[in-house]
Amino acid sequence: MRAVMYENVLRLDTTVPKPEPTSEQSLLKIRRAGICNTDLELMAGYKEFSGILGHEFVAEVVGGELAGRRVVGEINVTDGTCEMCQRGIPSQCLNRNAIGIDDHPGAFADYLALVSRNLYPVPDDVSDDMAVFVEPLAAALQVTEGVHISPRDRVVLIGAGKLGLLVAQVLKLTGADLSVVARREKPAALLQKWGIRAVTADELARRSAQVVVDCTGNAEGFAQALELVQPRGTIVLKSTYVGTPAANLTRVAVDEIRVVGSRCGPFDAALRLLSHGLIDTESMIDGRYSIDAALAAFDHAAKPGALKVLLEF
Amino acid sequence: MRAVMYENVLRLDTTVPKPEPTSEQSLLKIRRAGICNTDLELMAGYKEFSGILGHEFVAEVVGGELAGRRVVGEINVTDGTCEMCQRGIPSQCLNRNAIGIDDHPGAFADYLALVSRNLYPVPDDVSDDMAVFVEPLAAALQVTEGVHISPRDRVVLIGAGKLGLLVAQVLKLTGADLSVVARREKPAALLQKWGIRAVTADELARRSAQVVVDCTGNAEGFAQALELVQPRGTIVLKSTYVGTPAANLTRVAVDEIRVVGSRCGPFDAALRLLSHGLIDTESMIDGRYSIDAALAAFDHAAKPGALKVLLEF
Repeated sequence: MRAVMYENVLRLDTTVPKPEPTSEQSLLKIRRAGICNTDLELMAGYKEFSGILGHEFVAEVVGGELAGRRVVGEINVTDGTCEMCQRGIPSQCLNRNAIGIDDHPGAFADYLALVSRNLYPVPDDVSDDMAVFVEPLAAALQVTEGVHISPRDRVVLIGAGKLGLLVAQVLKLTGADLSVVARREKPAALLQKWGIRAVTADELARRSAQVVVDCTGNAEGFAQALELVQPRGTIVLKSTYVGTPAANLTRVAVDEIRVVGSRCGPFDAALRLLSHGLIDTESMIDGRYSIDAALAAFDHAAKPGALKVLLEF
Repeated sequence: MRAVMYENVLRLDTTVPKPEPTSEQSLLKIRRAGICNTDLELMAGYKEFSGILGHEFVAEVVGGELAGRRVVGEINVTDGTCEMCQRGIPSQCLNRNAIGIDDHPGAFADYLALVSRNLYPVPDDVSDDMAVFVEPLAAALQVTEGVHISPRDRVVLIGAGKLGLLVAQVLKLTGADLSVVARREKPAALLQKWGIRAVTADELARRSAQVVVDCTGNAEGFAQALELVQPRGTIVLKSTYVGTPAANLTRVAVDEIRVVGSRCGPFDAALRLLSHGLIDTESMIDGRYSIDAALAAFDHAAKPGALKVLLEF
């Protein structure tokens, strides 16, 4: 089968053996997949990954109980027995792997074998294009899973990339007073289309927001967030990257700020929002490529300001 | 009057004019005061303070409604009108001064004029020696004000200095499974006396504690806390210092850790715990000096491992 492999360099391999599912797994025929910034970070050395990339996908189940059903798949493959799993927090399983990120084959391939308990059937009113966004939309929803956002709050989102634009749409649904720091024209125009205030950092009052969400994806995000958050306010960290920035932790202590890390989120809630038509994914699609043109697709996705690039099978 | 002044150098000034209280203030005759690490940090450049030091004290009110009463005084002098005050969080007043720390004369002097609403009468069963600990004990209680600590939690406290030993005593009262990383013999012995487990960092399991409290007072504390906290766990930051350490914020995001800054706390609760006899302050007193020997007292307080040094008037 065809697969997008990363082993120090990115290549399309057309001779990868089709996976053989175990009794716990389902065989999935990938229909569509999306390129995420994490895929690009992996190529920059994050997690020292090598193998088949890809964790945003919609697929059709081949054989078994769910045969013929369209599904999306939870990114974390867990042991179900560790302390975090026992406490009902499988996304933080101490022995987890992650599809296309950490010691598990990814979805940029014709087929993927995935443990069946990770699958979520996709309702008919959620198209393949929409379903590809379930994983990042779930990650966006992890902001409101982890932090109570009141409709009275002033909320600032820094970073209007692929994840940021989904977080913006989720935050809009809270009714809070939302401003999004967007450096580029394209996302700023999209935010305006959605009725969300797009600003530059200079336009915002210092230390004024109850909640600041850092979706910059870089090490500068935290310092910016610290400038904008009110004493006793909350900073939600969505950014992961290579490197450890200098952080003014004394400010955190003195102003009694809460910093909340946020990662993978609830797939079922993401499917509900998509099914309700509350999230605009269509406008976020920046390009479509056949898996055969995966390298061109990655070039496109790596362009500064690129939005979602899809791989079609 | 006598006053301990810091203006690039520390000195005892015996010619400082007695303060004249405004109509909103009470005149306080200081009875006893304590030297805090923050006093030492101020001399290292924190806040660029110059003036009369001191914020831990018990005093007698001279004149007015509370005449003759023993009182302690809330450290933050607030405007009562800013957004944080209006929201009921005066300790984060946007225009606050802090006694002996930030643009307000301190308590290492014969007299202090302090806004009357900051005063808390001290019950008879709380001695002067105990009352000097109200301010730092309130700061210790801000840990449990800011974070829910369950009796089922594994809690690690890093740092067993003056503040750390008070935090340890507060955490003991939660019933949680508490370990305190204590490098020195004296605090380790005190902890053992109180029935609290004193350990070295090496004895603790990595990524295992639900809550880690950083009372190291230095920039290394956060990295140590990150090593010990469980995914989805909480780090409480009590440390303030000069400098901005490198912090692994990607770990915070991926493991969905909560970092909670914590500063000044509830004086009334501190008085209640002291009145109930639940906090051992006596064992934490390392030395007593007359205000006339303030420089020797500061030398003592600055010794590595020194516990509370009191100034007597």
